Amino acid sequence: MAGMDALGFGFASAQAMPPPLQGGAKGKKVIILGAGLAGLTSAYELTKAGYQVQILEARPVAGGRVQAARKGFVDTDLAGNRQECNFDDGLYINTGPWRIPYHHQSTLHYVREFNVPVELFNNDNDAAYVFFEKGSGPLAGKPVRKGQIAADARGYTAELMAKMAGKGDLDGALSAEDREIFMAYLVNEGRLSRKDMTYHGTDGRGFEILPGAGVSPGPGKEAEPYAFSDVLNSRAWRVLSSVAGWEQQRTMFEPVGGMDMIPRGFVKNLPPVITYNAKVDRIRQNASGVRVSYTDGSGKSSEVAGDYVICTIPLSVLKNIPMDASKPFVAAMSNVAYAPVNKIGLQMKTRFWETNHWIYGGHIYNDIPGIGTISLPSSGWHTGKGVLLGYYSFGGEAARISALSPEKRAQFAVAQGQKIFPEYGDNFETAFSKSWHLDPYNLGGWAEWNEDGRKSAYPLLNEPDGRIYLAGEHLTYLGGWQAGAIESAWAQIAKLHARVQQA
Amino acid sequence: MAGMDALGFGFASAQAMPPPLQGGAKGKKVIILGAGLAGLTSAYELTKAGYQVQILEARPVAGGRVQAARKGFVDTDLAGNRQECNFDDGLYINTGPWRIPYHHQSTLHYVREFNVPVELFNNDNDAAYVFFEKGSGPLAGKPVRKGQIAADARGYTAELMAKMAGKGDLDGALSAEDREIFMAYLVNEGRLSRKDMTYHGTDGRGFEILPGAGVSPGPGKEAEPYAFSDVLNSRAWRVLSSVAGWEQQRTMFEPVGGMDMIPRGFVKNLPPVITYNAKVDRIRQNASGVRVSYTDGSGKSSEVAGDYVICTIPLSVLKNIPMDASKPFVAAMSNVAYAPVNKIGLQMKTRFWETNHWIYGGHIYNDIPGIGTISLPSSGWHTGKGVLLGYYSFGGEAARISALSPEKRAQFAVAQGQKIFPEYGDNFETAFSKSWHLDPYNLGGWAEWNEDGRKSAYPLLNEPDGRIYLAGEHLTYLGGWQAGAIESAWAQIAKLHARVQQA
Repeated sequence: MAGMDALGFGFASAQAMPPPLQGGAKGKKVIILGAGLAGLTSAYELTKAGYQVQILEARPVAGGRVQAARKGFVDTDLAGNRQECNFDDGLYINTGPWRIPYHHQSTLHYVREFNVPVELFNNDNDAAYVFFEKGSGPLAGKPVRKGQIAADARGYTAELMAKMAGKGDLDGALSAEDREIFMAYLVNEGRLSRKDMTYHGTDGRGFEILPGAGVSPGPGKEAEPYAFSDVLNSRAWRVLSSVAGWEQQRTMFEPVGGMDMIPRGFVKNLPPVITYNAKVDRIRQNASGVRVSYTDGSGKSSEVAGDYVICTIPLSVLKNIPMDASKPFVAAMSNVAYAPVNKIGLQMKTRFWETNHWIYGGHIYNDIPGIGTISLPSSGWHTGKGVLLGYYSFGGEAARISALSPEKRAQFAVAQGQKIFPEYGDNFETAFSKSWHLDPYNLGGWAEWNEDGRKSAYPLLNEPDGRIYLAGEHLTYLGGWQAGAIESAWAQIAKLHARVQQA
Repeated sequence: MAGMDALGFGFASAQAMPPPLQGGAKGKKVIILGAGLAGLTSAYELTKAGYQVQILEARPVAGGRVQAARKGFVDTDLAGNRQECNFDDGLYINTGPWRIPYHHQSTLHYVREFNVPVELFNNDNDAAYVFFEKGSGPLAGKPVRKGQIAADARGYTAELMAKMAGKGDLDGALSAEDREIFMAYLVNEGRLSRKDMTYHGTDGRGFEILPGAGVSPGPGKEAEPYAFSDVLNSRAWRVLSSVAGWEQQRTMFEPVGGMDMIPRGFVKNLPPVITYNAKVDRIRQNASGVRVSYTDGSGKSSEVAGDYVICTIPLSVLKNIPMDASKPFVAAMSNVAYAPVNKIGLQMKTRFWETNHWIYGGHIYNDIPGIGTISLPSSGWHTGKGVLLGYYSFGGEAARISALSPEKRAQFAVAQGQKIFPEYGDNFETAFSKSWHLDPYNLGGWAEWNEDGRKSAYPLLNEPDGRIYLAGEHLTYLGGWQAGAIESAWAQIAKLHARVQQA
């Protein structure tokens, strides 16, 4: 694998495989708090290594944030909004994580381990619309295809650059030989005419009349490019960049049928170690062990004892649970923010984005306040109905929309989406919304560290306090991703196991 | 749909839906030559409209070029090379068409009509390697990730452009206001540092040390960008362009299990109108009807009679079959070239491109003579074995490699691919190669018209000669695509039906 490292992808088996936990468990019992991916990973690997484990999970199901809302799924938020999902059979929305970049090999490790069928997730679709109503000029507030913006912005830029380079006007940035190659690159990248080094559009933008059979339509007629100034003023170029950011890189996957197929895989492969509906009240430790008291589903208080705790409860929630831990450790938990994050799934009675607009999956980037990203499903092609992601929003805008009732949230999402797809209103059937900051067991979508927190609180919380180990996406640089939960668990159980071996 | 047209995609229902054939068939019988997609489409639509149809097909199966080689599939080429596919159960290679761009709505029409399950085809993977051995400098002949080349080429270009624009040095190409926006675009597109408007690399290139849990790896370490001169001299930038060409546009699909699921869909939905193993010897017509004589599977000559012929036999083959047609019509058939095209499927005992290189589908663009494109499968994730496309080549290089025996072709493909993936040799198990120019029923991959041919021969062949109508991808501007075969059939049956109605 050294060769791979040299290619700049930093492949490290430590992040693709669980730590080897050899040498036996010495009869130790580990209490795991939370059956999200960090807890499930800990339980699965520790069980394999011979540990006795018990998971306390506040919810009636495993998975934590890894949820898919489908028919019958119930969610009650802190504002008292109770929703029961009413999607048609077979339809769902991933309310939490919804995609797996190819380089999240830790997540894919368990996908393979549990034979979870996956399918491609279409994370980048040039045919998808971009909609920026805050731009100016004729393209503002109008759905335009991402690929058309890419062709025009890069085409005109290449033309400008080629004209400068043709005059030798590069301040010596390139040698004469390299400048020749650079010109060839610009022609290729910008699809410039070789004759005049000018951008006149390109077939990749699409056609006014599609090419086809015979002499009519025959070759068809290419669409004219937009004016450069219109493209610039539209601000739609904001969706372009040389290469996708690391976390948005293709290829991406999704489990067939919903992201919760991953936690289900864990549960199927674990002995019955999960106590559901168990809300942790207090975490105690002393020199000889740990005790965790919790309220069970019937409202009764119970307690479990063990040798160690792995606590995966989000810090936003954990900081309010009494714990025998050092003051700096407890104080550090308040040193991180949890982001308001919301999503809504809208069931539509036809897949109009495919049939009318020819957009098969991908995201509709836009600047509509409170909407964030609209995203179209990457499965269920040609099946009639579909559930699209009507908003996926963060921060203040997410808080503002989530403050509405579920009905009003849906009305908002439909009314706003209608600006882009006129079919929204006629096709909308039922919605399911999730507000992570209003979920009592999360109080936010994910941990957001600032620079100070990363320096002080973060390292402290990554080390055990006595017999208590924390784990979760909040203790990684993979914030909000399943890979973070898994890799944090791997790191912490490796530490715990090393300690058990040394004891 | 007028709104859609305004968006420059030229959506035309004429190319997405079969022509309505109303008014009845007046008892007419149509002899269809060839059960490829043009013939099947003609038969299916004419049958629905009430016509009596009969298809003569030279092969023992329907589909024409739409073939998938899987266990037991036999191919004997003109050089006498007989191959029987020996892939493991469940594995296959699409020897002919292998992808459906989202805008080929005619193809997708039948995918929907026959409920053919489709999955995404990964046509553009930034993590895939580019391998150009004919470049120069340190990156030549070395597998580099497409996304890294994209980040660097566009990043350095944006930096150069921003420096020019920062000095106001654009010859008045942009207004002062637009230039400000242009600078913001360049920062975004090139991922420039806002501080110094310089390209210093970007996380989208990948990491030397991947980000992960705790403080180590913690944030990881980004890989350093390549030097601009090295990128230019590598020629790897040839794979970049502002937007994919129209025929290579994402989103793309493939039928689950093989492209021949489409012709199978037709056959299941047709009455038993196909006569297999029927090699057309002669096509006759007079004022009252048509007669086609053929040799059947037992070597016996037979003849069928009807009112019209729709002939979908490739012109490369048809020009050698005696036909009652005008001299200009017959002469026009020689006015088009048929491209040598070959493909090879290599069964590998592990999916090393995924497990070792983290490349999930997509193409390995390269400049190795005789290889053309290497392509990795978009299905069967995590299933152990896989069949990759070892070469997909055109023209003289395809002819050169296809002249080898099937064993030597496989040896060639494995030896060349080994330059990119060192695992090739150890993993190779069995191959299946297809050379379309050596197929007696095709004599080439697809029709290639030159400008002269398009002006004279093409329009002539698109009109019927007496009672004989030609159809196929060769009579479209969708050469080599299933959509061409389908849309040509739609165009020709519409003409035939209009004539029947007028008669």
